[in-house]
Amino acid sequence: MSKFWSPAVRELTPYVPGEQPRERLIKLNTNENPYPPAPGVEQALRDFPASHLRLYPDPSATALREALAEEYGVATEQVFVGNGSDEVLALAFQAFFRQPRPLLMPAISYSFYPVYCKLYDVTYRSVALDDQWCVPLTAFDTDNGGIVFANPNAPTGHGHSREAIAALLERNTESVVLVDEAYVDFGGESTIPLVSRFPNLLVTGTFSKSRSLAGLRLGFAIGSRELIEGLERVKDSFNSFPIDSITIEAGIAALRDRAYFDACRERVITTREWTRRQLETLGFEVLPSQTNFLFVRHDAYQGRMLFDALRERGILVRHFDKEALSDFLRISIGTDDEMTSLVEALQAVCR
Amino acid sequence: MSKFWSPAVRELTPYVPGEQPRERLIKLNTNENPYPPAPGVEQALRDFPASHLRLYPDPSATALREALAEEYGVATEQVFVGNGSDEVLALAFQAFFRQPRPLLMPAISYSFYPVYCKLYDVTYRSVALDDQWCVPLTAFDTDNGGIVFANPNAPTGHGHSREAIAALLERNTESVVLVDEAYVDFGGESTIPLVSRFPNLLVTGTFSKSRSLAGLRLGFAIGSRELIEGLERVKDSFNSFPIDSITIEAGIAALRDRAYFDACRERVITTREWTRRQLETLGFEVLPSQTNFLFVRHDAYQGRMLFDALRERGILVRHFDKEALSDFLRISIGTDDEMTSLVEALQAVCR
Repeated sequence: MSKFWSPAVRELTPYVPGEQPRERLIKLNTNENPYPPAPGVEQALRDFPASHLRLYPDPSATALREALAEEYGVATEQVFVGNGSDEVLALAFQAFFRQPRPLLMPAISYSFYPVYCKLYDVTYRSVALDDQWCVPLTAFDTDNGGIVFANPNAPTGHGHSREAIAALLERNTESVVLVDEAYVDFGGESTIPLVSRFPNLLVTGTFSKSRSLAGLRLGFAIGSRELIEGLERVKDSFNSFPIDSITIEAGIAALRDRAYFDACRERVITTREWTRRQLETLGFEVLPSQTNFLFVRHDAYQGRMLFDALRERGILVRHFDKEALSDFLRISIGTDDEMTSLVEALQAVCR
Repeated sequence: MSKFWSPAVRELTPYVPGEQPRERLIKLNTNENPYPPAPGVEQALRDFPASHLRLYPDPSATALREALAEEYGVATEQVFVGNGSDEVLALAFQAFFRQPRPLLMPAISYSFYPVYCKLYDVTYRSVALDDQWCVPLTAFDTDNGGIVFANPNAPTGHGHSREAIAALLERNTESVVLVDEAYVDFGGESTIPLVSRFPNLLVTGTFSKSRSLAGLRLGFAIGSRELIEGLERVKDSFNSFPIDSITIEAGIAALRDRAYFDACRERVITTREWTRRQLETLGFEVLPSQTNFLFVRHDAYQGRMLFDALRERGILVRHFDKEALSDFLRISIGTDDEMTSLVEALQAVCR
């Protein structure tokens, strides 16, 4: 603590991201893609003239937003881009959720949401998951200043259908509903086709997972023009140029290669289902997953013990200290070889 | 306006950066460096393995902070990095200036400062420049919740000595003094050597000007460990990974080439002084500049008229509509050829 800090800063509890270890480990802890980005990204880096870096980027990243608009079948004015979907989410909390009524969110979801609330003085109320570890959409049917949830949800992996979310939107028309689709490309159903019907729907996405670009920091939001304009007002009061010139080009290159994108996500899904079956054979409960991770627990072994045992064997997964989740491990889907090593390590531990 | 926006968002007046034109113009409007970044930056882009982008960056950008610490003779824990110095400034306003007492700033300075105040509910009071267009440091000797100014100042170009700022810091010990040194490498005197004496001094810098990397988005702050920790708390409540993996490598490469850095800034200074003499010959009043721009006016011609006349001749400079500044043009220092074209164009206009 320092007397020089703003009083509110003393109250912050910053988000702690998954570890980025310096040692060589099989890294299954932060839901990165095991495959490299599309070959066109490598080419974009090779072709980018360093001399061009002396100039500021396009503050609106128009070419990148046009490429996203084409990919998702919306107008360019319905697309916002930011420095990772974390920045997009942060700006959305400022733009829409600083309301007299509380924001609603699942009690178990992306743990950055309550951190943003603290940072921007947003009051919120969390709703418990149901007994299947699903977000109970009807629990949001109450007076609110906004609704946010991840779909599919993290770290549980369950996703609702577009139809179920459309029904929520039919019932909730007076506040913004933010659907965080970080993991949707691994088997979820995107709500982006609903933005033309619901002016209060904002959908966020990221290049960090299905497009293998976590190191590049690129996220986006798609919604009605009025919501995108709200995001732009906050962004232009914060940082005119959040997306650098190289990221604009690399992001466009990643979007252009639909075949590579589809092949990667299908490989991840296939490996996920193989891993699920192996873990079930070992006696694990594996929650159904529409994501690139599995959320698992074992009757006979504590989550923390399994985490430590895997780490000793050179495998890093994610364990959450939060009480409701402490039985579980969240295991990112790596390559087939990595998942074979994981299964072998767990076979050795769970004998 | 939208009913879905947070009430505070309706009150925002976003910052408007200088235009990034798509046409080919001699671009002297946003204080970019006319020379490319250090050759090592090109090499860093060529050497960067795209496959590495599948992983998240180091959230603390430690290697880059170590390189900055070495460059400036401070500890790594005294260095903070952000997505351009705009982001660093925004986080600093949150971290330090949300105080019961008002922030003090010059009435004429970087026009993003009041925008941050609006975004973060910071009350502020501005102090008039003196009759030499200088920031009157003694005007800050009053009760305050913080002090911010650019040194050298923009768009005027005047800078105070380190000694003068040390004297201010001797008098102002209870609130944070933020010195924005975006332009210091073109002839100003950095206050970074003072951070070991004054725990309330925060100095910000950028790679956008003297290091020719505006397109990369990289800024930094240097201060006491307690101020840097305050910035980190806000950053980690906002965005864990603001600096992408490529920017980390390119930034380190730029720092390594001291000879190139010195040569570029000396060329800019030499060109600036040549341009100053030419403009004075044409009857312009040219404020003394320690930056990579000149702030000029002419008794016989209005600023807006000169701006338009130059634009017609393919030269883009900056004109501010703000009344106190409307006589002036702010002209970035380009290459010798570009400045020769500028002088010739003004000779044609001011006959």
